[in-house]
Amino acid sequence: MGAMKSALRILVTGGTFDKEYHELEGRLYFQQTHIPEMLRLGRCQLEVQIETLMLIDSLDMGDAERARIVAACRAASEERLVITHGTDTMERTARLLGPLPLGKTIVLTGAMVPYTFGSSDGLFNLGSALAFAQTMPPGTYVAMNGCCFPWNDVRKNRVEGVFEPRSADAPGAGA
Amino acid sequence: MGAMKSALRILVTGGTFDKEYHELEGRLYFQQTHIPEMLRLGRCQLEVQIETLMLIDSLDMGDAERARIVAACRAASEERLVITHGTDTMERTARLLGPLPLGKTIVLTGAMVPYTFGSSDGLFNLGSALAFAQTMPPGTYVAMNGCCFPWNDVRKNRVEGVFEPRSADAPGAGA
Amino acid sequence: MGAMKSALRILVTGGTFDKEYHELEGRLYFQQTHIPEMLRLGRCQLEVQIETLMLIDSLDMGDAERARIVAACRAASEERLVITHGTDTMERTARLLGPLPLGKTIVLTGAMVPYTFGSSDGLFNLGSALAFAQTMPPGTYVAMNGCCFPWNDVRKNRVEGVFEPRSADAPGAGA
Amino acid sequence: MGAMKSALRILVTGGTFDKEYHELEGRLYFQQTHIPEMLRLGRCQLEVQIETLMLIDSLDMGDAERARIVAACRAASEERLVITHGTDTMERTARLLGPLPLGKTIVLTGAMVPYTFGSSDGLFNLGSALAFAQTMPPGTYVAMNGCCFPWNDVRKNRVEGVFEPRSADAPGAGA
Repeated sequence: MGAMKSALRILVTGGTFDKEYHELEGRLYFQQTHIPEMLRLGRCQLEVQIETLMLIDSLDMGDAERARIVAACRAASEERLVITHGTDTMERTARLLGPLPLGKTIVLTGAMVPYTFGSSDGLFNLGSALAFAQTMPPGTYVAMNGCCFPWNDVRKNRVEGVFEPRSADAPGAGA
Repeated sequence: MGAMKSALRILVTGGTFDKEYHELEGRLYFQQTHIPEMLRLGRCQLEVQIETLMLIDSLDMGDAERARIVAACRAASEERLVITHGTDTMERTARLLGPLPLGKTIVLTGAMVPYTFGSSDGLFNLGSALAFAQTMPPGTYVAMNGCCFPWNDVRKNRVEGVFEPRSADAPGAGA
Repeated sequence: MGAMKSALRILVTGGTFDKEYHELEGRLYFQQTHIPEMLRLGRCQLEVQIETLMLIDSLDMGDAERARIVAACRAASEERLVITHGTDTMERTARLLGPLPLGKTIVLTGAMVPYTFGSSDGLFNLGSALAFAQTMPPGTYVAMNGCCFPWNDVRKNRVEGVFEPRSADAPGAGA
Repeated sequence: MGAMKSALRILVTGGTFDKEYHELEGRLYFQQTHIPEMLRLGRCQLEVQIETLMLIDSLDMGDAERARIVAACRAASEERLVITHGTDTMERTARLLGPLPLGKTIVLTGAMVPYTFGSSDGLFNLGSALAFAQTMPPGTYVAMNGCCFPWNDVRKNRVEGVFEPRSADAPGAGA
């Protein structure tokens, strides 16, 4: 299968997904992405290209960072993309990508607990996102909490720590 | 959402997914399903009913056990089902369900390593199966290794320990 | 053994040992001690009393906090104590207790990685500290990295992240 | 420290400590010892030599295997030894070593749950055993459940799955 075009591309941007504990400094930080390790753990047989764009907390994302994400989505030869992203501003990046005529299925996902910590939702979300990326029609989506939300109808409920439709009646809705 | 019909039903049959280590007897065994715990870990927000049909190794499944699985699929009010199942004879159960006019989306999944052991593909496969169950049209599928196989084109490669299309050229294909 | 005086008392002060990841706020924090859970995991059969004095990072310890630790050591009816403590200023607390004529065996220990994170040295250090607490003569010690250091000959090597004798030739020695 | 004589030697014989799950065959087996990995996890700074004598379940130990253990204890240049051993017949090996005039401190330990499975007592017991090996006078001991038992006063309580003095009133005492 050496010459086959990748079925999927994973664009890594960091977020809680890839945070680690720095034992000498006693703080959380990024060293490298754990996506390859997670795909091995899941015994994933899909043809996947992994591209690390950045490793940052999504609260630290500005226009320049988001522009790089958009550019990577355009440049990808694959038609199906998964973007790992911090959950705090995931909906913002989704709303930037959503209106663009990219002709690709783009699924953003993340984690509430770092993969390296155990008790993480990371593996579950990755399996979920890769599945939705294979089946959803072209468009931008957020895959969190087992659900797949269209880009224009999702928000993070910051009180509960879960994602829900924008139309849901819930406090703590963010922009 | 209290009165809403469940979006999905998970039928638990056991398999490596739910095996545990019996420390007094030094062997593997079944005690209870870990699916509720895994859904909590994945912070799953889907409406899911969990029904434990049995907790056995799929090598121990006979006609009676498979008949119970078929009956449970028929009886379910949900149109989307996930069945957790041992990987050794998962394709056999899939081929039994596949031709039936059930009008439901049925996704079988399992794990190569028990969830309780760490380094398990269980969480990844569960996220994957729940996603495929929400998006695939009515029919029976096997969701393993990140992929979704139709019931009539899947087999377990017993040399590699992965699932692949029946048409793949590979040794160790089982029936 | 119901009426038997406790063989050991564990005084909990927090430190990296008991840190957790706060998923809504994305930071590390203290919620409760995990010592009871760790003793269950280790299948510990010792008679142990657990007393939580505080749950703080040892960098936040001041004279008042250290005075409480000393007071708790004095007040304990047990002759053998283990103190869980942040590693950053563990030697400072050891040097405060060391000269006191308490007539007890006091072993301080901690962890470089939080117990809740996996890949933690916490369980290893706890087993180690409880053993040294049972065998060392009265005095104050630091049990880290498998070794038992007397209170007056130990320091944390902040470059390597390990404990060593004060007499060792090593950069980054702290005070 | 290159030419320094090892402070301790760990003799590995297998037991539940080192069991793993064979995912293709769905059974427990031995592949390699995890002691080096566990020492790294514990950030152990002791000078330790690791010698793998065998990797078997202690129920499979016969006279030949026990003779090899005795020979390895004699041959070791270190005066302090830890032996990792299956818990089922650990007391038998202890009673074989106990009366011998070896002039060494020998501590047997094991685990009720394999290290690779998570929720294991392995790390705790290893930290415990290494500490007792450094402090106990010459003789043979069993370090389990946080306690250190002399070779002639220990048995495995097979009902509770813990070690206790032979003099304890408890059912399920083994020989």
